[in-house]
Amino acid sequence: MKTKRFHVADRVVLETRKKVWRGTILDSYDPEVVLLKLDSGYNIGIPESEIINAELVEPAKPSRGKKLTIQKKKGLKNVALVISGGTISSRVDTRTGAVKPSEASDIISMCPEVSNICNIVKVVRPFMKLSGDISYREWKVLSEVIFKLLKEVDGVILTHGTDTLTYTASALSFFLRNLSKPIAVTYSQKSIDRPSTDASLNLLCAAKYATSDIAEVALIGHESMNDDYCLAMPATRTRKMHTSRRDAFKVINDLPIARISKEEFKILREFRARSQCETVLDNRFSEKVALIKVHPGSDPDILKFFERKKIRGVVLETTGLGQVPTEEARLNWLPKIRSAISCGMTICAVAQTLYG
Amino acid sequence: MKTKRFHVADRVVLETRKKVWRGTILDSYDPEVVLLKLDSGYNIGIPESEIINAELVEPAKPSRGKKLTIQKKKGLKNVALVISGGTISSRVDTRTGAVKPSEASDIISMCPEVSNICNIVKVVRPFMKLSGDISYREWKVLSEVIFKLLKEVDGVILTHGTDTLTYTASALSFFLRNLSKPIAVTYSQKSIDRPSTDASLNLLCAAKYATSDIAEVALIGHESMNDDYCLAMPATRTRKMHTSRRDAFKVINDLPIARISKEEFKILREFRARSQCETVLDNRFSEKVALIKVHPGSDPDILKFFERKKIRGVVLETTGLGQVPTEEARLNWLPKIRSAISCGMTICAVAQTLYG
Repeated sequence: MKTKRFHVADRVVLETRKKVWRGTILDSYDPEVVLLKLDSGYNIGIPESEIINAELVEPAKPSRGKKLTIQKKKGLKNVALVISGGTISSRVDTRTGAVKPSEASDIISMCPEVSNICNIVKVVRPFMKLSGDISYREWKVLSEVIFKLLKEVDGVILTHGTDTLTYTASALSFFLRNLSKPIAVTYSQKSIDRPSTDASLNLLCAAKYATSDIAEVALIGHESMNDDYCLAMPATRTRKMHTSRRDAFKVINDLPIARISKEEFKILREFRARSQCETVLDNRFSEKVALIKVHPGSDPDILKFFERKKIRGVVLETTGLGQVPTEEARLNWLPKIRSAISCGMTICAVAQTLYG
Repeated sequence: MKTKRFHVADRVVLETRKKVWRGTILDSYDPEVVLLKLDSGYNIGIPESEIINAELVEPAKPSRGKKLTIQKKKGLKNVALVISGGTISSRVDTRTGAVKPSEASDIISMCPEVSNICNIVKVVRPFMKLSGDISYREWKVLSEVIFKLLKEVDGVILTHGTDTLTYTASALSFFLRNLSKPIAVTYSQKSIDRPSTDASLNLLCAAKYATSDIAEVALIGHESMNDDYCLAMPATRTRKMHTSRRDAFKVINDLPIARISKEEFKILREFRARSQCETVLDNRFSEKVALIKVHPGSDPDILKFFERKKIRGVVLETTGLGQVPTEEARLNWLPKIRSAISCGMTICAVAQTLYG
């Protein structure tokens, strides 16, 4: 193996019969393939067997990984940071150009002002997942981790990918009853090490929220495209409305709880206050649930499919206030709904019109 | 049968062993059951067999049904009215209190100003359906009816229920290519004979749109809760955002085409103009399509169900820009998507975030 002596982040020249490649060695899962980041920015995988000559141009600089040292400042509240994945928890490895999960130290060191707001006394990383892969089981894990942390700290910040963030935040607000301390769920659309990141402000505002008197699960994120204000948005009343904008999240049919900036913390409506209540963990949740979006011509036999899958509850996202195609339509939903209910399925209808 | 001599809208007193009922006779589908509108407004069905005595209090007044007389005014454009159902096409039968499909004459007589804007030279009612029951087949019928009408008139008004109105309007805009005349699709949230109806303004503005120079399919409806302005909204860029408000429809990521009131007609952006183009009817459309909304924990086996149903194309409403649960999730969608594609299914991804 001509490349065995190379390390990640070494600059090398690799020669194959067809071409000479210059670039930086990346982590490769396949030991038979060398992964190279080219100077163009593209990555290429070169089978070890095709390499006829390999030269080290410049050895890797030592990794800048720092140990997280927690310095507690007197008078500041103690906050725990729970990292679950997503863009806010990833960074570009400057040595190689690859995107990697970031260390807690990266997250905090990129927003040093957090240390003037609270003491991050604990960092927990129960898993690292893209939010698209997060579901019931992860909600349970997160609720358990946070439930435990709430006994030790004054507030919790959870970092999460944006795609299913509102689902997770809602689940947490249902699972953690009688909440007595603030839980700030935050994100970023650009990773924290990039110049235009939205992570710094989100994290700073999340820290302010986590030390506030508001004992609710709130989503903390940019109010607009500007990098000045964040909103604290109620978990169950907020929806992701844009895939990639900083202000991706919007409160639907409600007011944000607070507007937060570096300088300000303005309460916008009534809220559940920090208290001595004993928070109750109730994360019983059946995985046997499904959601169906009803559309013109949609086939009610889908209920049969879910019956066979032993699905116990179905949310129908209906047209109108609860309208499904009836006997006047090509495919009549009513007998299929009746049959599913008689087989023990619980069916509830919601409107697909977002504002009521 | 003690009630055989009664007619719809007769005021009667019916005596059963348990109670005496006063009210107005309604149409009943079951000859064994007398349907009565009580003075309280509630309807009750009384089995004929339980009636021990029945008395006529006041016979029905003759129906006020009027024939539609079309008076053409010189200089006005000719417009066709296509009635497909929905609230705008229904009215309360003042004799009985039941909601019934209205006659074309009702629709027009409730908004007499329309006759100052255009000549309604033709009224067509290809079917009468709640919009929840309207689907591919009705879209085809409507496109054919309107295609034919466009050769005879200067513009078309289509009245439609609100729940699936944007689906139908979109379908029409795809089916009628090279459109050369305006098609105004309109609705009401309250039936046209009720004092606070939104139908009059919508119909008036639809008439103004149908005589305009804009050769696009547009949805005409209230701009706000006030009864002053309507917007002409582009068919494929408009979504129902509220189940019951007058301004239920909102343009997403685009501008309305025009703002219309009794006095004004203000163009808000570029538009396709009325022309001599020959409109092409292309309403080939496969019924073998489905939409799946992806959510945390959703089961990719649903693709197998659609394969068995011979569904040829699936739209996945994904989280993020095209994210589905992957190998890190409890249920991995990727192999199931690959398998469906290899079986010939076309799968396309859209974002469930409404604004991009």
